[in-house]
Amino acid sequence: MSQYQPPIADFAFALEHVVGYPDLAKMPGFEHADLDTVIELLEQCGDFVAKVVAPTNRAGDVEGSRLLPDGTVATPAGFKEAYRQYVDAGWGSVPLPEEFGGGGFPRTVGLVIQELMTSANMAFSLGPLLTQGAIEALLHYGDAELKQRYLPKMVTGEWSGTMNLTEPQAGSDVGALTTRAVPKEDGSFAITGQKIFITYGDHDMAEQIVHLVLARTPGAPEGTRGISCFIVPKFLINDDGSLGKRNAVATVSLEHKMGIHGSPTCVLSYEGATGYLIGEENKGMRIMFVMMNSARLGVGVQGLAVAERAYQQSLAYSQERRQGLAIGAPGPDSAIIEFPDVRRMLMTQKAYLSAMRYLMLLDATYVDRSTNDPDPAARARAEEIVGILTPICKSFGTDLGNELTSLALQIQGGMGFIEETGAAQHVRDVRIAAIYEGTNGIQAADLVGRKLGVRGGASILELLATMREVEADLAGAGVEFDSIRQELSQQFSVLEEATLWMLRTGAGDPNAVLSGSTPFLRMWGLCTGAWMLARAAVAAQATGDAELAKTQLVLARFYTQQLLPQSASLLGAATAGSADLFALDGDQLAGSGRKVRT
Amino acid sequence: MSQYQPPIADFAFALEHVVGYPDLAKMPGFEHADLDTVIELLEQCGDFVAKVVAPTNRAGDVEGSRLLPDGTVATPAGFKEAYRQYVDAGWGSVPLPEEFGGGGFPRTVGLVIQELMTSANMAFSLGPLLTQGAIEALLHYGDAELKQRYLPKMVTGEWSGTMNLTEPQAGSDVGALTTRAVPKEDGSFAITGQKIFITYGDHDMAEQIVHLVLARTPGAPEGTRGISCFIVPKFLINDDGSLGKRNAVATVSLEHKMGIHGSPTCVLSYEGATGYLIGEENKGMRIMFVMMNSARLGVGVQGLAVAERAYQQSLAYSQERRQGLAIGAPGPDSAIIEFPDVRRMLMTQKAYLSAMRYLMLLDATYVDRSTNDPDPAARARAEEIVGILTPICKSFGTDLGNELTSLALQIQGGMGFIEETGAAQHVRDVRIAAIYEGTNGIQAADLVGRKLGVRGGASILELLATMREVEADLAGAGVEFDSIRQELSQQFSVLEEATLWMLRTGAGDPNAVLSGSTPFLRMWGLCTGAWMLARAAVAAQATGDAELAKTQLVLARFYTQQLLPQSASLLGAATAGSADLFALDGDQLAGSGRKVRT
Repeated sequence: MSQYQPPIADFAFALEHVVGYPDLAKMPGFEHADLDTVIELLEQCGDFVAKVVAPTNRAGDVEGSRLLPDGTVATPAGFKEAYRQYVDAGWGSVPLPEEFGGGGFPRTVGLVIQELMTSANMAFSLGPLLTQGAIEALLHYGDAELKQRYLPKMVTGEWSGTMNLTEPQAGSDVGALTTRAVPKEDGSFAITGQKIFITYGDHDMAEQIVHLVLARTPGAPEGTRGISCFIVPKFLINDDGSLGKRNAVATVSLEHKMGIHGSPTCVLSYEGATGYLIGEENKGMRIMFVMMNSARLGVGVQGLAVAERAYQQSLAYSQERRQGLAIGAPGPDSAIIEFPDVRRMLMTQKAYLSAMRYLMLLDATYVDRSTNDPDPAARARAEEIVGILTPICKSFGTDLGNELTSLALQIQGGMGFIEETGAAQHVRDVRIAAIYEGTNGIQAADLVGRKLGVRGGASILELLATMREVEADLAGAGVEFDSIRQELSQQFSVLEEATLWMLRTGAGDPNAVLSGSTPFLRMWGLCTGAWMLARAAVAAQATGDAELAKTQLVLARFYTQQLLPQSASLLGAATAGSADLFALDGDQLAGSGRKVRT
Repeated sequence: MSQYQPPIADFAFALEHVVGYPDLAKMPGFEHADLDTVIELLEQCGDFVAKVVAPTNRAGDVEGSRLLPDGTVATPAGFKEAYRQYVDAGWGSVPLPEEFGGGGFPRTVGLVIQELMTSANMAFSLGPLLTQGAIEALLHYGDAELKQRYLPKMVTGEWSGTMNLTEPQAGSDVGALTTRAVPKEDGSFAITGQKIFITYGDHDMAEQIVHLVLARTPGAPEGTRGISCFIVPKFLINDDGSLGKRNAVATVSLEHKMGIHGSPTCVLSYEGATGYLIGEENKGMRIMFVMMNSARLGVGVQGLAVAERAYQQSLAYSQERRQGLAIGAPGPDSAIIEFPDVRRMLMTQKAYLSAMRYLMLLDATYVDRSTNDPDPAARARAEEIVGILTPICKSFGTDLGNELTSLALQIQGGMGFIEETGAAQHVRDVRIAAIYEGTNGIQAADLVGRKLGVRGGASILELLATMREVEADLAGAGVEFDSIRQELSQQFSVLEEATLWMLRTGAGDPNAVLSGSTPFLRMWGLCTGAWMLARAAVAAQATGDAELAKTQLVLARFYTQQLLPQSASLLGAATAGSADLFALDGDQLAGSGRKVRT
């Protein structure tokens, strides 16, 4: 297994030249987070994850987290120590408010740290990611007392956080949950119910675990409008802030999963556990959306991050493994990187990884702009763009996570299928990312159902118009950008056609729009990726760094000519309507209804 | 986990109406294998695999094969007994020559049996598959004595077979192998060397294992022209045919693999083991190609078979799992099959599975025609078509195996990621199929390097012309076939354009052709799949069975409108040449050569 190399130079170029970080750093609140400071910080963080976290990845997979006979959860060897160092260094606090002990850096920087952590060890990184989501919810909706009581130690990472949504009968349909919250005389609530798929629901890395739990109070309306959000600490907290007795929440079991074995996925049983209401009663879904929206971009980054590590491994393998003789090579044999089809697999990974990274960082800068831009109109527009880009980043990023880790494995041939090489672990680990935090199908439904109609479609069409501005930039950049511009222009036109069809069709036939939602989202993913690579190619040329300019030009050209054309090919699927999807009944789909002979 | 339902009705329709089995059964040697007999036999085989083999699948994954301290290999619980019943029933012997105790059925029938076995338990099915390959090699190249000595018990399955090609430094490049074979005075050879990735290299299911081993005799030429093929039995055979003492071949270790845990993948050490030359010295590669070509279609079927089982499970789950409320549904909740995006995932699986099954069965009928057609010209043409279709079936079938098992998992959401449901096992098991028996990249190189140039390109262009005949059939079948015909016609034209580009470019720039080989093969896969679905739709209409006609029409329309357009979108990648693939060096691909600041 090769060493993980944090792609700091890629981040630096992206931040400075592609996603406009220097402008972001000028906004109120980010003055201390200038580019030089950020890059130095990222270099240190990269060193940390490469040396401390990355070495725990394989052992975490082999050993996994275990539920001990005494009902506690033991994480794999090395996790506890790595987490202690993570807390000591304060990496989790970088993008959090200074008021509670954080570094006050833009979330864009937090997202890069998350990519680094996830590449190093996805299973390990989930604990901090969930903690961050819980912190966001508390920051937005907690009252002053809850914030003071919980946030400082959550910001340092001494206490970790969880999200408790899912129940056996309530997965994608959160509104079906039945966990009860009964008010007690002291203003707290008694929480009773069973929650499943709780990531880091219990573990031995932090002294306290802060559960955010969705439940229903007595007489609450049905569905999502009757859900409230509670904070349920693993240990009750004494008045002096010290930890008191164990709360009534128990770990029933851990799941045996395809991947992320190091991350304990718990079934938790709440048996009259003491909880405290966050925000208003029956408004819990709003809070969960804060956590989830923040987490969704983070999950998209997981696809990118695991694929980046898998790519690095496949690239190293392709340079080391000698096998056969490439055409025109001197002999006696060639590294397999000299074979065209291996090159194709490498270039495909590299181009998609670059496109995804630029796109996700762009989305993150809009998250920061939505809170810190001094212009209210710009803040509002940034929030709209985040609304559109986030489901794209989540779905496209995690679908590509699956596809690219599989390509990386393929390059390693039979060795890739052997667990010891680690190639298979990447494929297995990343597979969950397309499912959790809203399946990718739900992201597509979110895009066409909620985001498309914002301002009667003007919001998404304006984004498309912004994207098309790159065509002029390409036209001005020189003749070698022509083929990129031509392909991009055609593809953007088809994307526009699909978008207009969706806008026209949505009101009258919502099922037709949902039927095409996944191919439509993929078109957006492919086209926004191309947009970012084109921007990067133009920007790289302007730096005067010939090597960089060449690399970015080649990536943009390869992507637009050889990968992007898929987008237009999805127009038929995006706009076919629902008829053929629903034409066959269950028996016809099974084939079992048919007679054997006809 | 849902029960496996053998899709016998699909086989029956395919054989009778799509791939012309009745004509095949009229050929000399197949008279006893008429359609009715075959379907009855397949129904029995389906019952057998569903009841006896399928239940061993999950335990085989969990337990895996193990190397015991005494150096022997124990297969998982249930394998031994299932194999005994398989031998007793004689399923392995169905497509083998009657001369050696086989049923003398067409290999087309053998391929269906293989699909059934593989759907039931891929890891289990590999033993019989490898045995069949070894039998083919002996049938073609063994002398009368070797055949009499080995074949009868291999045909029954009492003895199993293996293929020993790979060595640590000789994977895709078989010619790099170094195992030595030194002649002894009695005419036998002493075989010494280490072989890796030997499927069922040792196990406890058969009393004897017959290894086919590639090795070099003293003074043999370098590369593939100096390789000879030997038969090396696990136990030496006494003159009376009984088993004698243990031969000098030992199991060094078993691999820990991502999937097919039940199948023991062995490192074998030959330490002066007694072997017998098959065929001529230095002509071993020819023999291995016989085994591999037979196995390549079989590996394609693995992609289909595992995806079929995964599909069945996802369909059952989508009908049982209730979650949320679909648009227009009565409530209180809906089975998730009512959601458009779940339908898309089901239809995508179903359409590809049907296309693949028809295509692979068609390939199999040409295998049979290549040996049993009374017309020598038809035999020769059939062999050409097999040469073209086999790499397509292998690559497209196994790529789809990866893609479709992942879709099946996705439908099952978080439960799909939990190992107990079995969805993940299908993804893990099938992943090897795109790698072994020649990676899919090697299949693509085979298509453009060897098969494309047959008769100066006339062979493949004639196949394309044959495919285009379906356009007239569609035109004559009625107005509801029009959209299928139009899309198909466009896509075939683009395929022709790509093929002509390949033919033009091949001689002058072989690297350009190799650079486009994988997208080119995918275009052929997509288009031949569409061809078969269109044929099936027309044929189903002619049966007068309205239900069947509707099902096949919908599948063909969905596929051509919503999946097939990908094909034309690959033209750019197929014909881009090698320049951009080789534009970046290793440092540029890594990104690490770049300065952090520019």
